[in-house]
Amino acid sequence: MSSTAGQVIKCRAAVAWEAGEPLVIEEVDVAPPKAMEVRVRILYTSLCHTDVYFWEAKGQNPVFPRIFGHEAGGIVESVGEGVTDLAPGDHVLPVFTGECKECAHCKSAESNMCDLLRINTDRGVMLSDGQSRFSINGKPVYHFLGTSTFSEYTVIHVGCLAKINPLAPLDKVCVVSCGLSTGFGATVNVAKPPKGATVAVFGLGAVGLAAAEGARVSGASRIIGVDLNPNRFEQAKKFGVTEFVNPADYDRPVQEVIAEMTNGGVDRSIECTGNINAMISAFECVHDGWGVAVLVGVPHKDAVFKTHPVNFLNERTLKGTFFGNYKPRTDIPGVVEKYMNKELELEKFITHSLPFSEINKAFEYMLKGESLRCIIRMDDLRIHTSGARSVLLNKL
Amino acid sequence: MSSTAGQVIKCRAAVAWEAGEPLVIEEVDVAPPKAMEVRVRILYTSLCHTDVYFWEAKGQNPVFPRIFGHEAGGIVESVGEGVTDLAPGDHVLPVFTGECKECAHCKSAESNMCDLLRINTDRGVMLSDGQSRFSINGKPVYHFLGTSTFSEYTVIHVGCLAKINPLAPLDKVCVVSCGLSTGFGATVNVAKPPKGATVAVFGLGAVGLAAAEGARVSGASRIIGVDLNPNRFEQAKKFGVTEFVNPADYDRPVQEVIAEMTNGGVDRSIECTGNINAMISAFECVHDGWGVAVLVGVPHKDAVFKTHPVNFLNERTLKGTFFGNYKPRTDIPGVVEKYMNKELELEKFITHSLPFSEINKAFEYMLKGESLRCIIRMDDLRIHTSGARSVLLNKL
Ligand SMILES: NC(=O)c1ccc[n+]([C@@H]2O[C@H](COP(=O)([O-])OP(=O)(O)OC[C@H]3O[C@@H](n4cnc5c(N)ncnc54)[C@H](O)[C@@H]3O)[C@@H](O)[C@H]2O)c1
Ligand SMILES: NC(=O)c1ccc[n+]([C@@H]2O[C@H](COP(=O)([O-])OP(=O)(O)OC[C@H]3O[C@@H](n4cnc5c(N)ncnc54)[C@H](O)[C@@H]3O)[C@@H](O)[C@H]2O)c1
Ligand SMILES: [Zn+2]
Ligand SMILES: [Zn+2]
Ligand SMILES: [Zn+2]
Ligand SMILES: [Zn+2]
Repeated sequence: MSSTAGQVIKCRAAVAWEAGEPLVIEEVDVAPPKAMEVRVRILYTSLCHTDVYFWEAKGQNPVFPRIFGHEAGGIVESVGEGVTDLAPGDHVLPVFTGECKECAHCKSAESNMCDLLRINTDRGVMLSDGQSRFSINGKPVYHFLGTSTFSEYTVIHVGCLAKINPLAPLDKVCVVSCGLSTGFGATVNVAKPPKGATVAVFGLGAVGLAAAEGARVSGASRIIGVDLNPNRFEQAKKFGVTEFVNPADYDRPVQEVIAEMTNGGVDRSIECTGNINAMISAFECVHDGWGVAVLVGVPHKDAVFKTHPVNFLNERTLKGTFFGNYKPRTDIPGVVEKYMNKELELEKFITHSLPFSEINKAFEYMLKGESLRCIIRMDDLRIHTSGARSVLLNKL
Repeated sequence: MSSTAGQVIKCRAAVAWEAGEPLVIEEVDVAPPKAMEVRVRILYTSLCHTDVYFWEAKGQNPVFPRIFGHEAGGIVESVGEGVTDLAPGDHVLPVFTGECKECAHCKSAESNMCDLLRINTDRGVMLSDGQSRFSINGKPVYHFLGTSTFSEYTVIHVGCLAKINPLAPLDKVCVVSCGLSTGFGATVNVAKPPKGATVAVFGLGAVGLAAAEGARVSGASRIIGVDLNPNRFEQAKKFGVTEFVNPADYDRPVQEVIAEMTNGGVDRSIECTGNINAMISAFECVHDGWGVAVLVGVPHKDAVFKTHPVNFLNERTLKGTFFGNYKPRTDIPGVVEKYMNKELELEKFITHSLPFSEINKAFEYMLKGESLRCIIRMDDLRIHTSGARSVLLNKL
């Protein structure tokens, strides 16, 4: 048991005080974990589009001040009452959606949408008591997705932590905690392209490229990348994408262009944009008789999916997925093992790296579409913190 | 080889001279089968909603005069050049969609949408020469769905004929040729409810009840029948339907009613109405995480399927099917065997029976929603026909 167990920890966190305003590194109080909670020391975190989306808070409930971040790797500092699966020192990946192992979803072989710990973007507090574990001068600072990894220490429900191989390098496998698994799982768990299949991927951000990586690993014969941003194409070649289509280059719907390229349509398509037009195109570009399209992108809340029902009758399938259909605690340790066994390449997703103090630059890279994943190194801050904290950290 | 082989056969057919007008029993000339075609003596035919739909010809290309009919059972009279799979005397079920066994769809394990012989509702002629095999006084009478079974003799592409067990009673198994297989296959081949599943069936006509029969055979724990016509409910009990919902009884969407009845939604739903609102409800009433909805009904050509894309992201699947995903030549003989082995009940689908001369009454029964399937007995006409024809029929 670490000497900090049961104590409030003071540490640095990047606080979003207002929507769209640069984060400010602040000293925050992190309360000890309550029942079924775990306090985790975050070593590496990365920035995902979903953080940017809720930080911008356009058209969503603004919940501020808030600590964002959900893609990360860390080490358990202490555990609350009733936690038996994890112990101090365990290496963990926080996941924005959980697995209680008790509900109908957790018991179903097909679903990962846990009734208890399913993603909730509006909630800024812990489930058990409706309180935040973060505070500054006694005033609450809200959680995000139950993870809030832009903090040196954070408190997370045990159901939202995957215990992974302690030999896995956290500065690499942290990307498994959201984007990589979401895209890779969408292909290998949901679209399931047979060997030799033609696959279209809409959106070549980190999620789409992880979907392409899934297609490459599955032995796809052609991987057609679709993006409005031509800067994505060069990079995408590293992910096995063999052809590129920019919808802006054509005066007819991109689904028609793809059908012509593939003698009637692709075998599988995976949409990773969040744009409703891309969702419709991704569905309509699959081959009749056997085509399967998978939606991954998070749509605008007023978006409407529209298509002629005959597109379904012609034996096309449309599915959606959430976190690549992975059950976080059960399945994510295995994804990390795939990396350890060299069946999965993670390095190519990591285009940038920054010390925690420069976290706002990661937002700029993403907004400009320059980065796939930017790893933020939490411990670079250690030198700036008080002696007391350094001692704590060293003891851990 | 029968003595009629290679000759024009004169026989009776029910001709639709104009959209929506009663059929007229006429003497027609039926030309011999050309390459890859088969001439079939129809013994029993039944009426399906699709016949009525194209006979009414509301909003479709009117193709008249035409001989309707596609659900039937018969015996091969003669075969054209190149036909090796069938010989005179074989018992066959005509199917409105074919299986060439050569195209990408026929070679795919998943699809039954043959490139060559896929359903074509506008075409009134044979594929090989663009001509009709039916004529009256030298003027063509058009085919329907390549089957035109409202005739004592008809010419059909070999790829649209399933060769079945000659011991199977054609007056029963004729319903396997369309409606039964469409609904039953939608459940057992596409929705695939696991044992104990909850299943909703939208539309309790013959197709929907066949879907319910598939759910019963699959061991569903609850089968919820949804129809706007409460007269359907009593009958549906024979098909294992356990609960009934009439959308007209509620002032909120029926998908909400079903979600309340089932703690979040059914495991599977099958839409067999052709109505776009029922299609949307059938999709939205399945449980998140694992629910699968299957569309079967043929929609209006201007219909638009609309839903919020989050309904997909929450891990619902939407598929459509065509002829229950059965490959006609490969799979339909096996469905007939299921009936022979008493794994499938067909008698309960047959609510009416008429001699050929009274075929128009079958249209009335269907339009009033009174019948499921009305079997039309072709040989009842024999007594009305000329001596020459009776001789032909007896020789066969
Ligand atoms: N379902 C889940 O569990 C889950 C998890 C994480 C992320 N997401 C979602 O996945 C999506 C992708 O995430 P990301 O981090 O890769 O984002 P990103 O912004 O890095 O990449 C998205 C790409 O899509 C392209 N794009 C946008 N509209 C397009 C269109 N109409 N046609 C073609 N391309 C278009 C953009 O140019 C961009 O390159 C986002 O919507 C994100 O919210 C979903
Ligand atoms: N996909 C295929 O291969 C295929 C093959 C044959 C038939 N079909 C189609 O299947 C459908 C059903 O055929 P059938 O012969 O059973 O027809 P039917 O007319 O006997 O039955 C349809 C039932 O749906 C009900 N209904 C209509 N609108 C409804 C709504 N909004 N909500 C609930 N119930 C509603 C009607 O009251 C009726 O009882 C038709 O659309 C037909 O064209 C498809
Ligand atoms: Zn994310
Ligand atoms: Zn759960
Ligand atoms: Zn039919
Ligand atoms: Zn074919």
